[in-house]
Amino acid sequence: MSKRAAEKRTSMRREIYLDNNATTRPLGSVVDAMAECLGDGFGNPSSPHARGRRARQALEPARQSVAELVAIEPENVIFTAGATEANNTVIAAALRHEQKVICTGGEHPSVGAAAGRLIGSRVEVGLDQDGIVDLARLRDVLLAHPKSLVAMHWASGETGVLQPVEEVCELASYFGAQTLFDGAQAVGRVPREECHPNYDFLTFSCHKLHGPQGVGALCFGDKAEVEPLLFGGGQEAGMRSGTENLPGIVGFGVACRARHQSLDSDLEKLRQLRDSFEAKLAEDVEGIRINGKGARRVPNTSNISFLGVDGQALAARLDAANVFCSQVSACSSARPSPSSTLLAMGVSEEDAFSSLRFSFSILNTMKDALEAAEIVASEVRFLREVFGCVQ
Amino acid sequence: MSKRAAEKRTSMRREIYLDNNATTRPLGSVVDAMAECLGDGFGNPSSPHARGRRARQALEPARQSVAELVAIEPENVIFTAGATEANNTVIAAALRHEQKVICTGGEHPSVGAAAGRLIGSRVEVGLDQDGIVDLARLRDVLLAHPKSLVAMHWASGETGVLQPVEEVCELASYFGAQTLFDGAQAVGRVPREECHPNYDFLTFSCHKLHGPQGVGALCFGDKAEVEPLLFGGGQEAGMRSGTENLPGIVGFGVACRARHQSLDSDLEKLRQLRDSFEAKLAEDVEGIRINGKGARRVPNTSNISFLGVDGQALAARLDAANVFCSQVSACSSARPSPSSTLLAMGVSEEDAFSSLRFSFSILNTMKDALEAAEIVASEVRFLREVFGCVQ
Repeated sequence: MSKRAAEKRTSMRREIYLDNNATTRPLGSVVDAMAECLGDGFGNPSSPHARGRRARQALEPARQSVAELVAIEPENVIFTAGATEANNTVIAAALRHEQKVICTGGEHPSVGAAAGRLIGSRVEVGLDQDGIVDLARLRDVLLAHPKSLVAMHWASGETGVLQPVEEVCELASYFGAQTLFDGAQAVGRVPREECHPNYDFLTFSCHKLHGPQGVGALCFGDKAEVEPLLFGGGQEAGMRSGTENLPGIVGFGVACRARHQSLDSDLEKLRQLRDSFEAKLAEDVEGIRINGKGARRVPNTSNISFLGVDGQALAARLDAANVFCSQVSACSSARPSPSSTLLAMGVSEEDAFSSLRFSFSILNTMKDALEAAEIVASEVRFLREVFGCVQ
Repeated sequence: MSKRAAEKRTSMRREIYLDNNATTRPLGSVVDAMAECLGDGFGNPSSPHARGRRARQALEPARQSVAELVAIEPENVIFTAGATEANNTVIAAALRHEQKVICTGGEHPSVGAAAGRLIGSRVEVGLDQDGIVDLARLRDVLLAHPKSLVAMHWASGETGVLQPVEEVCELASYFGAQTLFDGAQAVGRVPREECHPNYDFLTFSCHKLHGPQGVGALCFGDKAEVEPLLFGGGQEAGMRSGTENLPGIVGFGVACRARHQSLDSDLEKLRQLRDSFEAKLAEDVEGIRINGKGARRVPNTSNISFLGVDGQALAARLDAANVFCSQVSACSSARPSPSSTLLAMGVSEEDAFSSLRFSFSILNTMKDALEAAEIVASEVRFLREVFGCVQ
């Protein structure tokens, strides 16, 4: 095939979106419900008249649906502008109380950077080679800082690896510490029975679940007290002021309800997509390593080191081929630095730079998974050939 | 007319929405643009691939439109989840630096409550009977607390009264103080030439301008430094982390562009609606006082004391008649306390309780204004008759 023909083929290639840990496409039912709230259903939930009452009434079924997905009571759910605000709310309160914040080395910056805002405020614990928190080290740190806040991801956005939240909660509770789990990449991706509310705080975001950007949830356990970050009109029972994002919240409710209703089959579908992708890739190309494969993972995420290949170059070629994935988490992928999560797992800097994340959603098809694997394999072979790397 | 017939007439009455200071109906063009971003245009602006780039590119025209409406450079605009978050961002930074926050007695709680969060952190200056800040008192307070933050509304959400922002900026600047203007009720409601960027910070919200809830702006002057409230992925040049609310921001842009393009005629229309409403009301019913009428006001807001009438009862009867207004600002109207703004203006508690706010938008018609005035007058007469009040 001539170069021009190859280019033409590439430019006409349909999009395969495998960056669902960065953001997901909102469901049609979500968009419809939002359009209603932005049209005839508009209103300020704090207004005392009929239009305000209707707006207020629309909040509660949404809260119910969000709560159901994580098996908590609706009164333990506060709506925020996203997981970042929710994480910052809890961590800022801990810092005000001069608590240490104990994190792993693989946190999203809305946990890691927020926790490290003051000198000495963050204490880091390691991850093992599978990406699991080092519980022995956590115990030691808790012994030194018993009344701290343990703040960590439930599932890693980069590898999908799930942390042992029950063990972490037990340990923290023994030492009188609080727990915050960043569930942005876990909620809706774990079986219902794993949503036990033993934590103090659980945060997540709507736009990772086929809902809109700009809305998230802060869930809290019965013994936890939420200290507001935003002061003002006293919305959300005084815990989060600011006019409620009614269309966003309603969209959030629809997205959570949809996931709740088909959770088991959604998880199964995601697992099949990811497993088929990984299997085909392993078949088609040598010298790859699936990071976190030894651990329990959410079923939609594949983090793969293509040994000897420059990950950024590979991502760029895949981009040109309309296969969208990312090198590290979206919020930091503009900066060319290796994944801190992979480094914390003991992956070498070189191998971390050779790694890409592929994240599936229920809107992907098996054709997406298999075709993507084929394209990735072909691009990897191309790069290895061009740069003379032998694997 | 029998009681049943009267009820039937009421229940069939078309809605007259005069609570646009609480929230406004999004424009059709806003909803369309958002639906595109929630559909085929979805993406995370931080993603490095083509879909992310398109999302990133969509942010900048929106920022440009928002900036144009307030005559500032786009690089001096940060998107937030709303005016409450923007106000809290600036005020929290001032409190961290142990600055006093100087407010009037008529602030929205996202200024007033945020400023008073620490003991002794807020210093209050009065309003005169027209609702204008007492500049002599402000000077005295600045003399005692020169390096403070002066944080006040540009236009009052309750009366529409405009503060003398230039004089306030001059005074503050003389004393080395910073200024924050809460522009939620002013932006898009004042002539272009009044948008001079002499302030340090200007905040406003999209949903008061026929855009969606859940998005706002923090604008800053060239000498001002924004300290983030939310830490994380480093979005908005590190000043506001959290995945950008792309559909909300794009909707914000469309709403601001629409207002910018027809600002003069919009202002004229609002003025005509409000003036006709006030004139007809004054003609039809005695014993009313328009609060702030002696001052310059934004053209859409009417705050009226119906002497001797219980404002809550009047609002309830208007609600039943499908005329929607509010007693005090939406975020506090669930609590039956008199308007602090009116009290700060020297209005008696009784008269404050007898006051309602009517706020127009460009989606209102002259028919709305005149019909509403007629209904209000009739309900006021009814209540006075029933409760035997003589005016």
